Amino acid sequence: MSQVSGRRRAVTILDVARAAGVSRAAVSKVIRDASGVSPAMRARVNAAVQELDYRPSVAARALRGASYTIGLEVPQVGNRFLTQIVEGALEALGDTRYQLMIAPADGREGYGAIEALADRQVDGIVVVSPRVEARWLERLAASVPVVMLGRHDRSERYDTVVGDDTAGAGQVLEHLVGLGHRHIVHLTEDSAVTAIGTGSPHTLRLRAYEDGMAAAGLGALARVVRTGQTEKSAQATMRELLAERPRPTAVFAGHDQLAIGALAAVVEADAGREVSLVGYDNTDLAAHPALSLTSVDQGGPEMGRRAIGMLLERIGGRTEPRHHVIRPSLAVRRSSGPPAHD
Amino acid sequence: MSQVSGRRRAVTILDVARAAGVSRAAVSKVIRDASGVSPAMRARVNAAVQELDYRPSVAARALRGASYTIGLEVPQVGNRFLTQIVEGALEALGDTRYQLMIAPADGREGYGAIEALADRQVDGIVVVSPRVEARWLERLAASVPVVMLGRHDRSERYDTVVGDDTAGAGQVLEHLVGLGHRHIVHLTEDSAVTAIGTGSPHTLRLRAYEDGMAAAGLGALARVVRTGQTEKSAQATMRELLAERPRPTAVFAGHDQLAIGALAAVVEADAGREVSLVGYDNTDLAAHPALSLTSVDQGGPEMGRRAIGMLLERIGGRTEPRHHVIRPSLAVRRSSGPPAHD
Repeated sequence: MSQVSGRRRAVTILDVARAAGVSRAAVSKVIRDASGVSPAMRARVNAAVQELDYRPSVAARALRGASYTIGLEVPQVGNRFLTQIVEGALEALGDTRYQLMIAPADGREGYGAIEALADRQVDGIVVVSPRVEARWLERLAASVPVVMLGRHDRSERYDTVVGDDTAGAGQVLEHLVGLGHRHIVHLTEDSAVTAIGTGSPHTLRLRAYEDGMAAAGLGALARVVRTGQTEKSAQATMRELLAERPRPTAVFAGHDQLAIGALAAVVEADAGREVSLVGYDNTDLAAHPALSLTSVDQGGPEMGRRAIGMLLERIGGRTEPRHHVIRPSLAVRRSSGPPAHD
Repeated sequence: MSQVSGRRRAVTILDVARAAGVSRAAVSKVIRDASGVSPAMRARVNAAVQELDYRPSVAARALRGASYTIGLEVPQVGNRFLTQIVEGALEALGDTRYQLMIAPADGREGYGAIEALADRQVDGIVVVSPRVEARWLERLAASVPVVMLGRHDRSERYDTVVGDDTAGAGQVLEHLVGLGHRHIVHLTEDSAVTAIGTGSPHTLRLRAYEDGMAAAGLGALARVVRTGQTEKSAQATMRELLAERPRPTAVFAGHDQLAIGALAAVVEADAGREVSLVGYDNTDLAAHPALSLTSVDQGGPEMGRRAIGMLLERIGGRTEPRHHVIRPSLAVRRSSGPPAHD
């Protein structure tokens, strides 16, 4: 690590220009702003930046001038938990001159949305992206301060804010097993979102589910059911589960969006007494008395506030990485209870 | 109108520079990008632009280069209806190279959020802003294509997409009066949002409520109750209404966010059979079987798709204004029924 740091300090913009075989002005142009630069030029300069591990200094960024905009990349605009993160972020920015710019990646991995923010010269970026590669993010963090929200990979280059997903999912299993459930299904998104090695929260929740089932002697009954990322898809998947005989007696949904969609199917089938439902995120909707969804609270608004606080510190000059972990707690409501029969 | 058009065609960037007493390059700088320009310079140039009614041509914008970003200003990120507009916008942009950038105005009028988008050189802006002055928007529309969503003021400079709020609110009144309700309260936001002359949808719904009550011979019973813009505030206000004796038998909420908050208070008080609730926007939540909220459907996703379609036409060179009106329809669900007693 110290070797890397040593090399980093020695590298200047001229070294990058020489390595890329372009002018110093061209490197500056690529680093300052993508527009008006050919893709080939950009690729050469970026390759040199990566090879030499060059980091434009905070001072250089200050010279260029602050835009007083903060970027926030979100995977999906309709997700209520993300909305609450945004609300926390807005709260943290309330007294500052900064304007928030949200770039939704809806349906894509997030690269385009994050790059668009960087190209628009925001002063820093909060990314909420389970599908962007850590290596790519490290390169991004060389030119603009980055805070990664939700994912558990650690970096020397960017900060992270995460909930303790293993502990949160563990509490769900403890709750459901404690109520007497054995046929507990885990409803989550497709395998791209739960792939090992991505550090995605959904990967950790899935593993904690499997570990929790095994620890309770229910490993053979563990069953992971995949669905889309919307309420509608979770509702359709839950309808299929409810059509099974015997039915699962409990469903642990990977996030509240899925849980609320599943709840729609449960209410339709009037199966509320037979099937327990637990979500994750404890969005404000979970507490609505007409829904009353048991859910893991990982403090969405607090996550947004933290992420902005850490980003503003980085914009202010901090370069040491910070990794903040939020302790979750289970909010128990009417959607979960003892199994009717097992 | 033809005089204005005639004058407009004659004005060049040099005329603006002379009137402002600055160089042509300075005018160009102000028009291209706000950063690196002093506020005083900007004010002088903008005053000259406004005075001379100068419009930088689409060709000039094309020369400067497209950023392939579209800005969307929203008054509040937590509002589900706005989320559905955004989803429609994303759908319309799905096959294009454009990235959406959302700037939330949360708690402010929207000027800062819209300016930040313009400063970041987005290629066009959709604004959803009941509180920004039409005159100010006209000036903005002189330098970047603008589509205004929801508001009924018409302009030669920007396009509009609106629902027919008078017809929608009229359907609500017809429905509730037809069920036999007489004590019908209209729950809406503070007077800044319903001020006459703003063309805000909430102004029109309020007027249609009053007209509908009068037409039904219930003018003396008309009662407008003000609350905040969040579910929490609507829930608190609804609790107060439920504590009254006699209670109102029906509440027409100005939008679904308020209706869902009010519904929380109704469910808490187990007053669902005694108090009918109707919302506006028919968000996907309204259809959730656990909520089952009667609401006016004005096609949020369709509004978002339309607004983007019209904006892309303007970016493509159209300068004739278009004003699109969406016909609403009432989706009747379990939250409204005949009064228990009157």
